[in-house]
Amino acid sequence: MLNLANPTDSLPWQETVDLVVVGSGFAGLAAAFEAKSAGCSVRILEKMKGYGGNSVISDGAVAAAGTDMQQRQGIADSKEQMLRDMLRAGLSLNHTELARTVAEQSKEALEWSIALGARYQDRVQAFGGHSRARSHLAHRTSGFSIIKPMLSACRELGLDIATQHKLQRLICNEQGRVCGVRVREGYTYPDRNSGVPKNIKARLGVVLAAGGFGNDLPLRRTQVPDLNESVDSTNKPSTTGEVLRQAMAVGAMPVHLSWIQLGPWGCPDEKGYGVGPGFASYIAMPYGIMVNPDTGRRFMNESADRKTRADAILQVGRPCICIADSRGVEQSGYDIQRCLDKGVVRGFSDPAALAAAYGIPEGILQETLQAYNDALKHQAPDPYQKNILPGSAALKHPPYYAMRVWPKVHHTMGGLQIDTRARVLDTKQRIIPGLFAAGEVTGGIHGACRLGSCAITDCLVFGRIAGKNAARNEHGNHRAV
Amino acid sequence: MLNLANPTDSLPWQETVDLVVVGSGFAGLAAAFEAKSAGCSVRILEKMKGYGGNSVISDGAVAAAGTDMQQRQGIADSKEQMLRDMLRAGLSLNHTELARTVAEQSKEALEWSIALGARYQDRVQAFGGHSRARSHLAHRTSGFSIIKPMLSACRELGLDIATQHKLQRLICNEQGRVCGVRVREGYTYPDRNSGVPKNIKARLGVVLAAGGFGNDLPLRRTQVPDLNESVDSTNKPSTTGEVLRQAMAVGAMPVHLSWIQLGPWGCPDEKGYGVGPGFASYIAMPYGIMVNPDTGRRFMNESADRKTRADAILQVGRPCICIADSRGVEQSGYDIQRCLDKGVVRGFSDPAALAAAYGIPEGILQETLQAYNDALKHQAPDPYQKNILPGSAALKHPPYYAMRVWPKVHHTMGGLQIDTRARVLDTKQRIIPGLFAAGEVTGGIHGACRLGSCAITDCLVFGRIAGKNAARNEHGNHRAV
Repeated sequence: MLNLANPTDSLPWQETVDLVVVGSGFAGLAAAFEAKSAGCSVRILEKMKGYGGNSVISDGAVAAAGTDMQQRQGIADSKEQMLRDMLRAGLSLNHTELARTVAEQSKEALEWSIALGARYQDRVQAFGGHSRARSHLAHRTSGFSIIKPMLSACRELGLDIATQHKLQRLICNEQGRVCGVRVREGYTYPDRNSGVPKNIKARLGVVLAAGGFGNDLPLRRTQVPDLNESVDSTNKPSTTGEVLRQAMAVGAMPVHLSWIQLGPWGCPDEKGYGVGPGFASYIAMPYGIMVNPDTGRRFMNESADRKTRADAILQVGRPCICIADSRGVEQSGYDIQRCLDKGVVRGFSDPAALAAAYGIPEGILQETLQAYNDALKHQAPDPYQKNILPGSAALKHPPYYAMRVWPKVHHTMGGLQIDTRARVLDTKQRIIPGLFAAGEVTGGIHGACRLGSCAITDCLVFGRIAGKNAARNEHGNHRAV
Repeated sequence: MLNLANPTDSLPWQETVDLVVVGSGFAGLAAAFEAKSAGCSVRILEKMKGYGGNSVISDGAVAAAGTDMQQRQGIADSKEQMLRDMLRAGLSLNHTELARTVAEQSKEALEWSIALGARYQDRVQAFGGHSRARSHLAHRTSGFSIIKPMLSACRELGLDIATQHKLQRLICNEQGRVCGVRVREGYTYPDRNSGVPKNIKARLGVVLAAGGFGNDLPLRRTQVPDLNESVDSTNKPSTTGEVLRQAMAVGAMPVHLSWIQLGPWGCPDEKGYGVGPGFASYIAMPYGIMVNPDTGRRFMNESADRKTRADAILQVGRPCICIADSRGVEQSGYDIQRCLDKGVVRGFSDPAALAAAYGIPEGILQETLQAYNDALKHQAPDPYQKNILPGSAALKHPPYYAMRVWPKVHHTMGGLQIDTRARVLDTKQRIIPGLFAAGEVTGGIHGACRLGSCAITDCLVFGRIAGKNAARNEHGNHRAV
């Protein structure tokens, strides 16, 4: 762009650091930690009052292949198998080398988080679309259990988070190198005029780790017009795309913006992410069944990837009912008290009561349960190709639990194109000097569909790569890690 | 983008016009004609030595609803039905108001081209995915039959095409308004350093009508990595995305870049568009059948939209065989001599010889033909939901004709976001003053899948809108048409 505007040669810099990191979730903290460890001065910017973005409200499940925990539980897995699963779910739209990087470094990323102090439950689960049990569940099934030790580790290095700092623009020098940011300091979401403009010079560059745009309605509607205000999202309301836009404004290439993931375990009886997905994801989908309330029958593979499941529910056209029993709850090890307290999940003494509550034809529901139980008993292949977990029990142990399910926008697969060193590419596939990105703000890694528990892995792997590479990024000349 | 580069206040303009139009295909000529008719001075830029881009090698089919020709042939159709068909094929990702504009102005666009001198065959056809026969076939089934009179009409107004003028950049003034272009005059494709830089001032604005990016391998691979050099395209080699990139560089929002259409009637036995699609589209798909050579059986709805058909063939995993007979050739009114001369389509005296030539199990192919013929005879519903055309005859009239079919990149649904006045929008959904776009360089109109014969309609409708609106665009203040 030839810009006839005033030059900014005389730009006053209010602050100078080696590296600016935009965002304080998994990817941002990983990048900041690595860059600081390598001796850089780092400024972490967070637009909100609290840190951690959507990372802190995530379930904290980390997909990793070939881990010690898998070995202890006798689960044979490999990086190659994890990559194959990612490509299959992604409809092979994935940028393969990026997906491969995530799979290959997944074990190391998990171990790195453990070394920082993150705690995980003593078991792994096979999330939908994964052919192996490789989803490592964070303590209390909460991303906060991972974010908190990461933040502590950053603080021990002398790093802190500049909250209420919103990115306004990326600043480029005359060679087109990203050399700083303009922010609003003291920004109060969502008042765009709040705070005071400030320019921060970034000697080595800027890492964008600002998350996705799941709640940016204008942006998501440019790609999928039906995702209007009537479609809820599991993300925080502040999950908007201004950082993506600013990167595009300096020439960054967006990829796969049209691929927006709907979580197939959202509950229409609560707002946002809520508590229902825990019941659906950890109990009812793996150990129970999903039925169409009109027919009383199953209609989908409850262990499929998210896109396959969400598409199946949308095809039914109205909220469907996921059902588990008390044995499933036990097997999951998941506490459903909050789901019951909130009224999102309801308990029933028998299938007849459950059927009556949701208007399901009772006789057919009984048949559906019987058929499922019979197949389990005879170890027959599931007619919907569901991956029956070892130790799955017949659905016959009251109380029965059920929840209404309707998809919600969960993850935006699209974002900035990066290379395997987390360098942002422009529309001609050239590296934009001084610009790095990691996590959900990037695109291509997951193709058409991100598998559950691969997001945190992606954030940790590419966050670390971005931080390490940016630290080595002297005068815009990138050197290999 | 804060740009520290030298300002271009002192930019020397070598030429000044009211409007610059980039591209000389259907959309570009339509825009230029309308703007010139409204009294503007117009410069049409074309990077190649010849004019017309891919428009001149297209089949020249124009979808239009409620036309006189449809009435004469007793075909009940409506704009609403055309819109419904577009949305169904587009998986409802379409920007509905844009698609509606195309459907509503389709009849007028067709009539406008006729008024300029374009000639059409005296029949309409139901292309795949259209629920009505509404594809109006240009004389000689060639887009050149439409482009030629359009160009003559432009020349009568005193307009000519500046060939070998390649866009390098869009130039914005200090208010961010597009106020001109930098081009390379005397450019010789594909030498990017050929020609001499020249700045053209555009008082009212710039219309981008440069086509898609079907042969821009780096760009298409960012979105669909598998579309590498091994995948052919029906487009000219020069169908690259530099204009799209330059619009993005001034902040334009790209939509649906990931949706790239494969033509389900490409022939792997010839390069590029070739002659085979004519046989497959106009004869074998509507009046014949497609079989899997391994099984000898049909496997798809030959009248489905392009995406559905291409996906079905890709699923088979190897080139499939489309088959027609001499009666089908007659019914189509299509001359297959060039297909035979080129060896792309082959003639056979009986099904046995055809089966032997392509390695199809002969007995099963005979069964397949018999089943198809029986269903026709008894007017039974087609098991693959094929739309059986009135007057379709049994496949039993030698010679039989067959062609190998494998999808080729044909159309890029994605491109610049525009509003219903053809104004280009930026990433915040604001109008970019002085910038208009029409045709395949835009995105959103067709959603996930463009229906055959809707592209020319789109180009004519939005090309005219762009030209009219740009002509009314005084000092960057857009006024409504």
